[in-house]
Amino acid sequence: MNPTSALVVIGNEILSGRTQDANIRYLAVHLGEIGAPLKEVRIIPDIVETIIATVTEMKARYDQVFTTGGIGPTHDDITSACVAEAFGVPLELHEETAALMEKHYGTDQFSAARRRMAMLPRGATPITNSKSVAPGFTIGNVHVMAGVPSIMQAMFESVAPLLKHGAKVESRTWYALSLYESMIAAPLEAVQKRWPALDVGSYPFHRDDGRRGLALVVKGTDLKDLEAAAAAVRDLIAAAGAVPVEGEPPL
Amino acid sequence: MNPTSALVVIGNEILSGRTQDANIRYLAVHLGEIGAPLKEVRIIPDIVETIIATVTEMKARYDQVFTTGGIGPTHDDITSACVAEAFGVPLELHEETAALMEKHYGTDQFSAARRRMAMLPRGATPITNSKSVAPGFTIGNVHVMAGVPSIMQAMFESVAPLLKHGAKVESRTWYALSLYESMIAAPLEAVQKRWPALDVGSYPFHRDDGRRGLALVVKGTDLKDLEAAAAAVRDLIAAAGAVPVEGEPPL
Repeated sequence: MNPTSALVVIGNEILSGRTQDANIRYLAVHLGEIGAPLKEVRIIPDIVETIIATVTEMKARYDQVFTTGGIGPTHDDITSACVAEAFGVPLELHEETAALMEKHYGTDQFSAARRRMAMLPRGATPITNSKSVAPGFTIGNVHVMAGVPSIMQAMFESVAPLLKHGAKVESRTWYALSLYESMIAAPLEAVQKRWPALDVGSYPFHRDDGRRGLALVVKGTDLKDLEAAAAAVRDLIAAAGAVPVEGEPPL
Repeated sequence: MNPTSALVVIGNEILSGRTQDANIRYLAVHLGEIGAPLKEVRIIPDIVETIIATVTEMKARYDQVFTTGGIGPTHDDITSACVAEAFGVPLELHEETAALMEKHYGTDQFSAARRRMAMLPRGATPITNSKSVAPGFTIGNVHVMAGVPSIMQAMFESVAPLLKHGAKVESRTWYALSLYESMIAAPLEAVQKRWPALDVGSYPFHRDDGRRGLALVVKGTDLKDLEAAAAAVRDLIAAAGAVPVEGEPPL
């Protein structure tokens, strides 16, 4: 069994619609690649009790939990304090991080606000990265990262080698124009039943130019089963009178 | 107090990274406009027990709950059955919907797969819409919608007049280049403390061309307070030596 991952997006800006989230898909793809697939995402507001309760619940339920957002120097950056609380440990100055930041900014510019970003839960390991001197951190099975996508990605690259890995989740996709779900529902269900360990999905698309069709996707970790099921999907598309196109949506 | 909204995104395709979600932001913006702001989003897989447990929890916690995804005709479309279970009612053929669909498709083409889309929880009201003859539905405080963005939006437009409304959540945004959070953390916190009913946020941006800066956002329903707090934010940007630009990010 692959290890499970979950993501907690901490951010009023996503819930208000101000910002289009760009981190969920990045993590979904990369966690699938290392075989620790994303099983749940929660987007929650910057409220102390909500963050503590959500992190507490998710770290018990999943093998590894990621958070994004709320680790900067302003008053709405409360993630680190909440994660400390969820682990029942104090938030304290991480001396090594403070020294790195003081060196980076210079003593004059290492302000009280910046000092906040060197405060980590006791026992946490900093996630140093190529984009920001202020780190993310890992405590227990929780990995706390920035919300800004470029910094989040640098933190993920840095922590990825230390994560629980499993078998890569592979997928095969067949596209077909002018194919409707109701035309293939029964044979597609038969494919799912024949390979219960795979994940067989059907996703309609509607192009702006009016063309419609389906993407049929098979996902799993067993390559032999995957290829066999993908072939069965190709055949059921053809049997329904449509043209199966592999990999990319037909133009 | 404004009514609260929550969203449950049901979809393996979002969790696998295959699809970039487009519904969260749409609903976030439109629910803010009708004064029923989005307070939490959960993205969960197509697993019966998970859907039932999540809908049960969310409908008790929030004034209104939306779901997207899983109401088509294929085997992985299990949302309607799960929502019926969460309300403790049977899933049954909705005669009026079945009649509409049979008329639309013709008796020959109204297949068993399509008939599945006329199955609603007992007591549900169909969400008829301009894009698909197969409806979404409302039961209790839960509004069940399609996952395909164009259909979801048509369903939301259809159901919006029937939703719980509140005071519109307004926002004012000031942008500033070359301003860093650590430079304004203290005065920004003072603004939040002076207007505790408003939501004062700080969002760094990093452009691809290397330019960086901040967006400072004030949100709330009291326009007089909002304008006063926005003016205070403008002043604190200027006091930090940067140029406040309203509304749109400076190029």
